[in-house]
Amino acid sequence: MPRVTDPAAPRIALVGATGVVGTTLLQLIEERGFRYRDLHLVASARSAGREVAVEGRSYQVQDLDGFDFSGIDVAFFSAGARVSTTFVPKAVAQGALVIDNTSAFRMDPDTPLVVPQVNAHELDTRPASGIIANPNCSTIPLVRLLKPVQERWGIRQAVVSTYQAASGAGYSGIEELRAGARAVLDDPDSTGVTGTFSPSLAFDLIPRIDRLLEDGFTFEEQKMLQESRKILALPHLDVTTTCVRVPVVNSHSEAAWIECHNPVDRTELVQLLAQQQEVTVHDLTTPGAFPTPRTAGDPNHVHVGRVRVAAHNPRGFWMWIVADNVRIGAALNALQIAEALTERGVL
Amino acid sequence: MPRVTDPAAPRIALVGATGVVGTTLLQLIEERGFRYRDLHLVASARSAGREVAVEGRSYQVQDLDGFDFSGIDVAFFSAGARVSTTFVPKAVAQGALVIDNTSAFRMDPDTPLVVPQVNAHELDTRPASGIIANPNCSTIPLVRLLKPVQERWGIRQAVVSTYQAASGAGYSGIEELRAGARAVLDDPDSTGVTGTFSPSLAFDLIPRIDRLLEDGFTFEEQKMLQESRKILALPHLDVTTTCVRVPVVNSHSEAAWIECHNPVDRTELVQLLAQQQEVTVHDLTTPGAFPTPRTAGDPNHVHVGRVRVAAHNPRGFWMWIVADNVRIGAALNALQIAEALTERGVL
Ligand SMILES: NC(=O)c1ccc[n+]([C@@H]2O[C@H](COP(=O)([O-])OP(=O)(O)OC[C@H]3O[C@@H](n4cnc5c(N)ncnc54)[C@H](OP(=O)(O)O)[C@@H]3O)[C@@H](O)[C@H]2O)c1
Ligand SMILES: NC(=O)c1ccc[n+]([C@@H]2O[C@H](COP(=O)([O-])OP(=O)(O)OC[C@H]3O[C@@H](n4cnc5c(N)ncnc54)[C@H](OP(=O)(O)O)[C@@H]3O)[C@@H](O)[C@H]2O)c1
Repeated sequence: MPRVTDPAAPRIALVGATGVVGTTLLQLIEERGFRYRDLHLVASARSAGREVAVEGRSYQVQDLDGFDFSGIDVAFFSAGARVSTTFVPKAVAQGALVIDNTSAFRMDPDTPLVVPQVNAHELDTRPASGIIANPNCSTIPLVRLLKPVQERWGIRQAVVSTYQAASGAGYSGIEELRAGARAVLDDPDSTGVTGTFSPSLAFDLIPRIDRLLEDGFTFEEQKMLQESRKILALPHLDVTTTCVRVPVVNSHSEAAWIECHNPVDRTELVQLLAQQQEVTVHDLTTPGAFPTPRTAGDPNHVHVGRVRVAAHNPRGFWMWIVADNVRIGAALNALQIAEALTERGVL
Repeated sequence: MPRVTDPAAPRIALVGATGVVGTTLLQLIEERGFRYRDLHLVASARSAGREVAVEGRSYQVQDLDGFDFSGIDVAFFSAGARVSTTFVPKAVAQGALVIDNTSAFRMDPDTPLVVPQVNAHELDTRPASGIIANPNCSTIPLVRLLKPVQERWGIRQAVVSTYQAASGAGYSGIEELRAGARAVLDDPDSTGVTGTFSPSLAFDLIPRIDRLLEDGFTFEEQKMLQESRKILALPHLDVTTTCVRVPVVNSHSEAAWIECHNPVDRTELVQLLAQQQEVTVHDLTTPGAFPTPRTAGDPNHVHVGRVRVAAHNPRGFWMWIVADNVRIGAALNALQIAEALTERGVL
């Protein structure tokens, strides 16, 4: 059903419109009825000219080189950190407010890093930099659950191991996992397919995501620490992680051990988590129940299960978290930022 | 090459000889030149009569019901905890020393729970129960690395998330993963194949292994705590885990966060780990290097990588561990117990 474009609504541009995140953002705009005056789909020269249908209308993908942001109110960037580093400043200079899905500006002090369910108040005014950053896909579900825990019991440390899906590396990651899995099924000695991942992710695990830093942690692991601190405004919060890519197509999972300053009661904890916006607690009444990437249910919710307090240390508890990395971890969070900006009249 | 059976060597029986662990035990007996006077392959009525070749000789699989252990010096059991609960006492009563791969007797106070690289001294004498228990497959590699860390720095707590392979559930687990993966590749909406696993393990994660206990932990998670305490003779050791099945065919992995009483130096730590018997440290000289289930190398070694001390908390460090669950976690450990017993003249 073509919706009449709304002359009072913002003019929007999607950079990276042909990618996993961009395509999902278009779906969500439709699903959630996000209003716009007009819509511009932008990608690289590779996709320029391609026709994409949105809400019954056809749009031609435009080449980012030479795209003019002057008529744009809000530009969503999801085309990688390198593209954002170069083109976000240009978009801002031409007057657009940018919602950036990449890591390029997240730690910039003039750029708020926002998860609307956690720190929407940072959206009350237009940011000094003209940019609002969207956090890392593993950080978003975690901070949404850490916030109420911090307020109720105080967090001594969070120790988190991730189980991250191939889609976190875009379309090429998904295709490579599928092709590699076929190769290994056909020949168990096959080395699979590499390129986006190395070694092949097929029936294997890769305990390194993003580049290695000098201290031995990866950039992905550092993001989870630094971004959690910034979003929660807790500069001394202790979050330590191992980030692992697993042969799952979509949705990231996390095994999170949270040690608090005070003893935690499981019943109160699951009730508190279940009260959070868009969170489903699978073991609210059935201890031990759990979500999995393929069976969790509503992709717009953060899913939690296997919440359990350690008998020998009632200050510590585990939870198993599953969240759609493309939606919760990127496109939905970005769109919820735009919705919050609209509500506040900033957009 | 048929080896002449050794009249001075023990007479051995393998219960569960047709399973993943049993088959690997036969390979290892051959690879390591373990001597025996004679060899009996035992399984259920389903496999009785099947011919199996070992070192160039053919053996007929015998039915456990009715098998007589009187002429047996040592019996390896790897046919599940229920089978061990019923038949191990019978084998012991008939005079056999039992090396049991199941969870049936691990916590029995009269039964030593042994990882030869850690507590071989428990093999100096024949145990009161006539049984030596082989620990859980995720516990073995962990305790082999915890022991030197405990001695050097003292462990405050270990927080471990596992990434456990399908082969931990035997041949049916491996087959089910392969069949499910094919089904999902052919139709992305397929629910895969269930039976051994539920939901299907294909391109999914199952954060529950073995049965759920009243405290919300699984039996698998409880084993890692209780068995580590018993093997290391540290009744108050604090090990807390989340055990997760992942779509990997073979080799279990663990992301382990170890918090010590004293600050840890990475250089000293990796050197210490590398000095342990049959341990390969992948990042001894190349920080960040890591093993994966499919690429780790020598299946008879415990593989470690991504060893890193947290900058904000030098008492804590992470390591990524990969070990062949069927070899290190079961068959090899069992055979090394038998080798140690032979060396000590107990067998
Ligand atoms: N996937 C996730 O879970 C996730 C989560 C959080 C954040 N992110 C971030 O979102 C971004 C995109 O991820 P994705 O998963 O959607 O990747 P993807 O499927 O590979 O898509 C990449 C998109 O960027 C465009 N692009 C690439 N290079 C470009 C260039 N030089 N100029 C203009 N456009 C260019 C591509 O256009 P063409 O069609 O022309 O190649 C495509 O639209 C990345 O920065 C990623 O870190 C992703
Ligand atoms: N796989 C691992 O990583 C691992 C690690 C540590 C411990 N374990 C333990 O080792 C045991 C076997 O595991 P697996 O992986 O080898 O399983 P598997 O591949 O399923 O093999 C099971 C074996 O047990 C035999 N068996 C089953 N029921 C029997 C019965 N009622 N009477 C006699 N024999 C029977 C089977 O014989 P048939 O051919 O006649 O069916 C087969 O030889 C389990 O207790 C498991 O917990 C396994």
